[in-house]
Amino acid sequence: MKHLIEPLDFTTEEYEEIFSLVDDIIANPIHYSHFCENKLLASLFFEPSTRTRLSFETAMLRLGGGVIGFSDAGVSSSTKGETLLDTIRVIENYADICAMRHPKEGASLLASKVVTKMPIINAGDGGHFHPTQTLADLITIRHYKKTFDNLTVGLCGDLKFGRTIHSLVRALNRYENVKFVFISPEELKMPEPFKNFIEKENYYETRELTSAISNLDILYMSRVQKERFVSSDEYERLKDYYVLTEEKLKSAKDDMIILHPLPRVNEIAPEVDKDPRAVYFEQTKFGMYGRMALIIKLLEDAK
Amino acid sequence: MKHLIEPLDFTTEEYEEIFSLVDDIIANPIHYSHFCENKLLASLFFEPSTRTRLSFETAMLRLGGGVIGFSDAGVSSSTKGETLLDTIRVIENYADICAMRHPKEGASLLASKVVTKMPIINAGDGGHFHPTQTLADLITIRHYKKTFDNLTVGLCGDLKFGRTIHSLVRALNRYENVKFVFISPEELKMPEPFKNFIEKENYYETRELTSAISNLDILYMSRVQKERFVSSDEYERLKDYYVLTEEKLKSAKDDMIILHPLPRVNEIAPEVDKDPRAVYFEQTKFGMYGRMALIIKLLEDAK
Amino acid sequence: MKHLIEPLDFTTEEYEEIFSLVDDIIANPIHYSHFCENKLLASLFFEPSTRTRLSFETAMLRLGGGVIGFSDAGVSSSTKGETLLDTIRVIENYADICAMRHPKEGASLLASKVVTKMPIINAGDGGHFHPTQTLADLITIRHYKKTFDNLTVGLCGDLKFGRTIHSLVRALNRYENVKFVFISPEELKMPEPFKNFIEKENYYETRELTSAISNLDILYMSRVQKERFVSSDEYERLKDYYVLTEEKLKSAKDDMIILHPLPRVNEIAPEVDKDPRAVYFEQTKFGMYGRMALIIKLLEDAK
Repeated sequence: MKHLIEPLDFTTEEYEEIFSLVDDIIANPIHYSHFCENKLLASLFFEPSTRTRLSFETAMLRLGGGVIGFSDAGVSSSTKGETLLDTIRVIENYADICAMRHPKEGASLLASKVVTKMPIINAGDGGHFHPTQTLADLITIRHYKKTFDNLTVGLCGDLKFGRTIHSLVRALNRYENVKFVFISPEELKMPEPFKNFIEKENYYETRELTSAISNLDILYMSRVQKERFVSSDEYERLKDYYVLTEEKLKSAKDDMIILHPLPRVNEIAPEVDKDPRAVYFEQTKFGMYGRMALIIKLLEDAK
Repeated sequence: MKHLIEPLDFTTEEYEEIFSLVDDIIANPIHYSHFCENKLLASLFFEPSTRTRLSFETAMLRLGGGVIGFSDAGVSSSTKGETLLDTIRVIENYADICAMRHPKEGASLLASKVVTKMPIINAGDGGHFHPTQTLADLITIRHYKKTFDNLTVGLCGDLKFGRTIHSLVRALNRYENVKFVFISPEELKMPEPFKNFIEKENYYETRELTSAISNLDILYMSRVQKERFVSSDEYERLKDYYVLTEEKLKSAKDDMIILHPLPRVNEIAPEVDKDPRAVYFEQTKFGMYGRMALIIKLLEDAK
Repeated sequence: MKHLIEPLDFTTEEYEEIFSLVDDIIANPIHYSHFCENKLLASLFFEPSTRTRLSFETAMLRLGGGVIGFSDAGVSSSTKGETLLDTIRVIENYADICAMRHPKEGASLLASKVVTKMPIINAGDGGHFHPTQTLADLITIRHYKKTFDNLTVGLCGDLKFGRTIHSLVRALNRYENVKFVFISPEELKMPEPFKNFIEKENYYETRELTSAISNLDILYMSRVQKERFVSSDEYERLKDYYVLTEEKLKSAKDDMIILHPLPRVNEIAPEVDKDPRAVYFEQTKFGMYGRMALIIKLLEDAK
């Protein structure tokens, strides 16, 4: 039985299976609409995350399955002092597969160690991993670019704390000749351990979005939070550097695509939403299809 | 594609379509029990409202569809500062139709401007509109009276702030020879703008429920809140005037019907519940059937 | 129409029907997977209880039915001052059967008095009754012991406030020659009224789990809360007496079974989980099957 706890739990071959399944689901949605009949997803959100939760629940319902769960630790038994592992052991008697978000790093991994027949999907564990976001990112890139090889990928904003960025970089780095451009203020640079996974000639770092944008096939935006800066002067000076506008997009390629894990605050100007290169809302749709494919794959492996 | 943002968004002909559909659903519930198979309702309650939410969710489930959503803004992404419109754009990638309650006036209208394929139903936007309550009211009246023409309709209680009352008056005023009796304390009289829609000879105002009741075909009760009064002496003096009792009902017609949008606090004495003229609990059932018909109609228009 | 408000609402013959139905559901789950098609369960949790709520919802979904409801009074209309009975009257227009948890004793009984077509299942009413926990207990015992007659049942921990223990004792006492061993500190002894139901020769009381364990066919553990003790010295002195360990289990019979209503805090050491006699997680599965059977039975009686 397989679980998905961190993005690299799947080989590129396993991702390829999921991508093919996504293509097939998109082409034949009706064919899959009864695939999970008589199956239940436990959607356990010990920490709220509406978008991710609704994406999982939509995925299961569109497969004809049912959903049980909670959207908030406040209504879970954790208030009575029950351990996470006891909760999971009970839920395993109710549900066939489990998507779980928890504020503690490693919670999903721990859960995956005690179950015997219910696959666990990590829907976010603290600042650690969020593999189905990476899955959404990869499916979106593949949809628009047809390949992962030979792409130049800009990652912009908070590269220090952005877990989705760290995961995406590691996942993309497994393909041929992927180049990374890390665009961030000094305070929020990509941490050394993540850079060490990448060949020196395959990345460079810059503070300037405007000058870097013209070479990119993909621009992955993320939020720059004021709290991350040592001085608010520095924040005020830099913040506009990392806001994507139509002006900055003028020098970008026509077929560059703009991704964002959402929620967006102000790092992408609303005017950009109408740009055909802006695919961050489409990305949430691909995320849902990815979760459908993932549920199918993990349930088949658990048989 | 149609939305339902305010009660007058539908013509009387469109309401007639919905009423016919309701009749057919009541007559053949099994026929409709798979009508929304493979369809999802997003039930987005940025403000809690259990009765309305459960009515929508019941409606969708009884049509064979699925439901995703939240019952409280606390568990939605709005806590992360995401704009309503971004939320709606994401949800449109998950669901086929959306019922939305929001504390801000105009929120549903705004949402309806950004969607391209998901109809929006306003399930209440602040003190503004609550069109599916009006729908429930109309269906109940039509069920018992067979017509809207030539009715004398008493509206009692808080006519100043009661949005469901304002909407119902405007909706009923489109029919032939409907007479209104506005029964309220001075402080809570029907506001001028709403009276201006009505021909002068078609309404009168009174402070006395007891004397007005004998002419009514319909009595629509609403809650009189203490906080609305300038002086608490005035409140104490008047409050019993607006509590419906069996005693007051003695002079009412045998076929008068009593409506209330619920929740009721104490403005209808519990003894009245057993009176055959009391149909306010039946009204919630008609509300559910109305929402079933509405979902069907909007999904068909969106095809 | 039947409701299940307290465990003794069902005769032993009625329980026998449910047990047979559980056997059949376990043997032929697919046969029952459409049994409740077009039926809705209202899952009304005016007080949170994740495990019980998810068990009911799983039960209904596994029968092919739908679920509406809330997990928390905060999102229910009770915040608007509506009475419980008005809420129930409205819900009866939406749902076919109702599971309800409420902090007030007698709430479910009250609800069952106003409904005319929707059976009520008490999912816990304050410190009063929790009959579906008793159902889970009975099904688990019957599964492992094949009979209720001639068993020796140890109940350990908080026998004073533990409602599930009181209910189980009363339910088991209806069978032939059941012996009870009440194991608790002085402060938490079984209350007189419950002992009075039992023949004097059919029970004895002790403070020692270790010495009592060897005769037991069933050991029902419960939590000993620090707050229940007059002095914290006394608590410190006694608490380990009521923690079940592998050491204490050495003198127990090989076919004794260990039950617990969960959540467990520390009264069963984690090492015990692997012991084949530990069936408290299985017990939650039997609870779900029991709720499936109960829903079927009550819906059939309501026809």
